[in-house]
Amino acid sequence: MDILITGGGGMIGRKLVERLAREGTLNGEKIDRVTLQDVVEPTVPPDAPFAVETRTTDLSDPGEADNLVSGHPQVIYHLAAVVSGEAETDFDKGYRVNLTGTWNLLEAVRRAGNVPRLVFTSSIAVYGAPFPEPIPDDFFHQPLTSYGAQKACCELLLSDYTRKGFVDGIGIRLPTICIRPGKPNKAASGFFSGIMREPLAGIEAVCPVDDTVRHWVASPRAAAGFLVHAAGLDGEEVGPRRNLNMPGHCVSIREMLDSLRRVAGDKVADRVRFEPDPFISRIVAGWPQNFDPQKSVELGFTTDPDFDSIIRVHIEDELGGRIAD
Amino acid sequence: MDILITGGGGMIGRKLVERLAREGTLNGEKIDRVTLQDVVEPTVPPDAPFAVETRTTDLSDPGEADNLVSGHPQVIYHLAAVVSGEAETDFDKGYRVNLTGTWNLLEAVRRAGNVPRLVFTSSIAVYGAPFPEPIPDDFFHQPLTSYGAQKACCELLLSDYTRKGFVDGIGIRLPTICIRPGKPNKAASGFFSGIMREPLAGIEAVCPVDDTVRHWVASPRAAAGFLVHAAGLDGEEVGPRRNLNMPGHCVSIREMLDSLRRVAGDKVADRVRFEPDPFISRIVAGWPQNFDPQKSVELGFTTDPDFDSIIRVHIEDELGGRIAD
Repeated sequence: MDILITGGGGMIGRKLVERLAREGTLNGEKIDRVTLQDVVEPTVPPDAPFAVETRTTDLSDPGEADNLVSGHPQVIYHLAAVVSGEAETDFDKGYRVNLTGTWNLLEAVRRAGNVPRLVFTSSIAVYGAPFPEPIPDDFFHQPLTSYGAQKACCELLLSDYTRKGFVDGIGIRLPTICIRPGKPNKAASGFFSGIMREPLAGIEAVCPVDDTVRHWVASPRAAAGFLVHAAGLDGEEVGPRRNLNMPGHCVSIREMLDSLRRVAGDKVADRVRFEPDPFISRIVAGWPQNFDPQKSVELGFTTDPDFDSIIRVHIEDELGGRIAD
Repeated sequence: MDILITGGGGMIGRKLVERLAREGTLNGEKIDRVTLQDVVEPTVPPDAPFAVETRTTDLSDPGEADNLVSGHPQVIYHLAAVVSGEAETDFDKGYRVNLTGTWNLLEAVRRAGNVPRLVFTSSIAVYGAPFPEPIPDDFFHQPLTSYGAQKACCELLLSDYTRKGFVDGIGIRLPTICIRPGKPNKAASGFFSGIMREPLAGIEAVCPVDDTVRHWVASPRAAAGFLVHAAGLDGEEVGPRRNLNMPGHCVSIREMLDSLRRVAGDKVADRVRFEPDPFISRIVAGWPQNFDPQKSVELGFTTDPDFDSIIRVHIEDELGGRIAD
């Protein structure tokens, strides 16, 4: 099996390819080759039991999508995107990469003609306040950010290209990924990870919203699990509604900090201080907080057991089991 | 006031400009000029109390959208679209005209910088079965046609460009317009008008679906009313959810034929015969039938009193009050 991962240099891409490298198979088939595309040079996992090709390119450049799908990969993970904060401040770049880039890819797949399974990472940012509590699967998509609007458009294209038989698409609306490893990115949701990650690494962290703010989160490990599960779904069983809310946990900042205190102790938890940021607060106020993701649960998607586990996953996967003193 | 109407040569455009010509004003302001753009030469209403310019162009051609908005019209009616049946059979044309064309227009408006009120005719085809009964304003958009997907994408763009302050958009999801005057078009919904219009004109008509099929309809006169009302809405009052389900009537084919018999007599009603068409039936089965358009009713949109009135509007506006014997 050949797999293409756009945005393969990003955090989710890295988590996915590391998992694929450990397992060596996808949908029960041996993986022969993985192509990692990104605007930055993607990291090749050591000891992968398959060939790994990297392509440092811009998916929205003319012809690049055709190049990427010319080898007829059976599974395409389309992760490449400008994140929410940057899509909000650079309107043109957001639309060019997130909407035109995805549309280019779908058109290239249509021209290639082999109807691959395409797993697209959408986002709960397709939803905009006010919300029902919890949000059902059939609540409408009225994004309050350009990022959300771009993802919602891509979902519509993915469904329609799938309905016409040009691609076999599955869109998964990722919860906010927490705890993101590494450096902060430009996502407006970055602090949800920062206020856990930095204290665990011995660094002070600033929370820009108040502690009653709730959000819908899943670990990077759970996200890699969603991607692997999505590749194997039976399209007939999914039906025409191809974009799915992923299971996650609804937690408040207060609950996250209580978890941190429980799992990592007072010294770690005391490294977080509050400094309200109106720009971030305004974006976050429009975000969904709680879901009832019936369809994805029926389809067998699973997530972290609770928020304590999300912290433990980070300590295990990123910190070699050790919390900074 | 300067007004631009894209798709001004179509039926809705004609109804709108005729109404504007009768009234001479919009939002209480005197109309100075109306520009009618279409791929076919638009009809200029006789005796319009304002200047009428026609432009026979393709909105999706490079540069054309910029030309159209260079005069900074205060109100833009964006009606230009490939209809549902044609968008389904010609995938590329549908996306080029309906999505790229609309996006070009929004970009041109953004560049022009004058933030006009832009009234966009969307469609209830943004919805896909299965549906709740009736469909609430916050039901999700999962179109089952390319036309519906294109309109849903345009709605997202319209909202986002409005949110960013580039345009002051209102999207109105038109019910199926019934009774459309003139010749049948390529819309899959065309028969809803045909089975009324042809018998009233003395011609036999074929109904391609069975008589239990229900649909959501409004008269051309009501549609022109929606467009005029949408131009005057206070954007603050509408809020960020700029795309609205218009009020209409949920009628079955059986109820439509009963109305026809009541209003026009047995001889006219007996001119309809049934000949099931699987292609049309399949498209129509995925269409919404009944709405609870709370928001638009709150905002003051009004529709026909009942289906008998819809038939009478056609007899009055299109047949000079006379039914063919």
